Amino acid sequence: MRISEVAALALATRLLETHGAPRDHAVLQARVLVTAEMKGHPAHGLRRLAQLVERIERGVIDPGTKGTQRWRADAVIEVEGSSGFGPVVAMAAIERLAPHIPDLGIGLVAVRNANHLGMLAHYVEAIAAMGFIGIALSSSESQVHPFGGTRAMLGTNPVAVAVPTAEEPLVLDLATSLVPMGRINHHAATGRPIREGWARDAERHPTTDPVRAKAGAIAPFGGAKGYGLGIAMELLVAALAGSALAPDVRGTLDSHSPCNKGDVFILIEPSLTPGLPARLSAYLDAVRASPPAKAGEPVLVPGDRARRRRETAGRDGFDIDQRLWEDLNALSRSRILAFEGQRS
Amino acid sequence: MRISEVAALALATRLLETHGAPRDHAVLQARVLVTAEMKGHPAHGLRRLAQLVERIERGVIDPGTKGTQRWRADAVIEVEGSSGFGPVVAMAAIERLAPHIPDLGIGLVAVRNANHLGMLAHYVEAIAAMGFIGIALSSSESQVHPFGGTRAMLGTNPVAVAVPTAEEPLVLDLATSLVPMGRINHHAATGRPIREGWARDAERHPTTDPVRAKAGAIAPFGGAKGYGLGIAMELLVAALAGSALAPDVRGTLDSHSPCNKGDVFILIEPSLTPGLPARLSAYLDAVRASPPAKAGEPVLVPGDRARRRRETAGRDGFDIDQRLWEDLNALSRSRILAFEGQRS
Repeated sequence: MRISEVAALALATRLLETHGAPRDHAVLQARVLVTAEMKGHPAHGLRRLAQLVERIERGVIDPGTKGTQRWRADAVIEVEGSSGFGPVVAMAAIERLAPHIPDLGIGLVAVRNANHLGMLAHYVEAIAAMGFIGIALSSSESQVHPFGGTRAMLGTNPVAVAVPTAEEPLVLDLATSLVPMGRINHHAATGRPIREGWARDAERHPTTDPVRAKAGAIAPFGGAKGYGLGIAMELLVAALAGSALAPDVRGTLDSHSPCNKGDVFILIEPSLTPGLPARLSAYLDAVRASPPAKAGEPVLVPGDRARRRRETAGRDGFDIDQRLWEDLNALSRSRILAFEGQRS
Repeated sequence: MRISEVAALALATRLLETHGAPRDHAVLQARVLVTAEMKGHPAHGLRRLAQLVERIERGVIDPGTKGTQRWRADAVIEVEGSSGFGPVVAMAAIERLAPHIPDLGIGLVAVRNANHLGMLAHYVEAIAAMGFIGIALSSSESQVHPFGGTRAMLGTNPVAVAVPTAEEPLVLDLATSLVPMGRINHHAATGRPIREGWARDAERHPTTDPVRAKAGAIAPFGGAKGYGLGIAMELLVAALAGSALAPDVRGTLDSHSPCNKGDVFILIEPSLTPGLPARLSAYLDAVRASPPAKAGEPVLVPGDRARRRRETAGRDGFDIDQRLWEDLNALSRSRILAFEGQRS
């Protein structure tokens, strides 16, 4: 079924508020989930909502905290996330650091023990909207095997980068796994085999069975290079946030463990060379206009497709699994009744 | 033929000195070239030496300058490279920034108009040896086509990362092209076809002919993701250094153009959480010990192979093309005679 952005935001915000989230925290967490749906990434979308609510009820999310910030050095804020919402803890620290960037030139936020961030694009887009270059990294549970290996030893270790230009920023947001676990789940749910080379099963054999793959490990993207990037990001996040490494990470996938992964955000002021933003935009336009491999399929720049999908979804609404929407509405209604009961 | 590290360093240093390089500049530039040979990357090795000399003679390398440094912000040094040796300009700025990193937590160097850096691993290894996390980026001439595209629009845009641990640092150094241009040159020199999917020719058709590929474009590594990473690095470097974008870059491959690409170095102090470096080492050891896909081929961590090769080459010497070595020796002898003639 098709729903509107406004309806999705309203439901998600209300559900989080009735579970104890202050209004501004609920709005931000809801925004991150709904934007992921609008960009066509439902694995980071509303299906996370029931899990967030369950995590609040089990006490492994504290919906009211922004974490505890501390200036570790002149240009570094360290944050104990204290089981807060990922987006709330992250944006509070980014907004604390941002006013200092024109003086510092570069600054870093390192977060541990906050909950799942959702799509990293959200954070670097927010940083680019402030006029800065943004880099975001986040660690997660072991789901990816090394190149030449067979056992899950790395997180999906996403990397996001946004660079402001005279027009729209370039926005890169990629996981260092060959495919997202969400896609394997989707194949499992629809009974379709996965492609050869995507994953191994729990006995470490190559498999095309998505159900067996879920218990095993996904391949890194791009062979040795993508694995190299993934393990470098694994170490970077742990070395900066002091957080757990993949085999010890819990709490971004389940409903009961405190979340102990790490997040890193870097904000940088671009060179103020006159004409530079226009030169960057002109270059991106030249890339888009360069001859495509297939006629009628123009070359894209990272962020183009997600931006277009988001615009379309903002205008026309977006599709969502009917049962998921009904379940979330039922959850919301029952909670509102309970909530109003408590208040009276 | 096989030569020793000491012999290679002596020859390269002498050749650069007799072309006007101060001793410390010659030693550093020679070190970077020789280390690349020892690590098994001859495309960044001694075959660059004749070109460096030719560039000095044509006035597009100034062997005596370290560039002009300026603090652009509290934590950012901007450098006008003034056609200096890449390694000399870069290391001078890194060494200027490094003593401030314990106070700042993070800092950045942005260089434009310096010459070719060679392998980026050198710089991040130097930063890791100071106890900091190092990130290095550098731009170059258009050699890589976009994912879904056919024309060279991006540099090979290498990325290097080093993270110190309790033992050896993790050292990642990867180009965002599927294969290095050096490998295509090698296939052309030895008359072997290249693999399908590696490159396109100047008419933008897929080709397995290395000679045609040299005039065309290499594919990005890892499909859309590797392309995304490459173009993000392209924009990052230009936005930070104010340097040229790939289609306008000159001077890292030829012998006559001033070099106008950009280089970026980021230095970060790791979290001082007790036990963290040992935890990082233990994790890397667990990855190395994890079950391999092929019996007898253990999982590697980025930097392992290069470190081993370098150790072996330091002990046993390394192989070099005999004609290259003879040519360099002849060049050196003729120059020494001319040099001594000038002095007498």
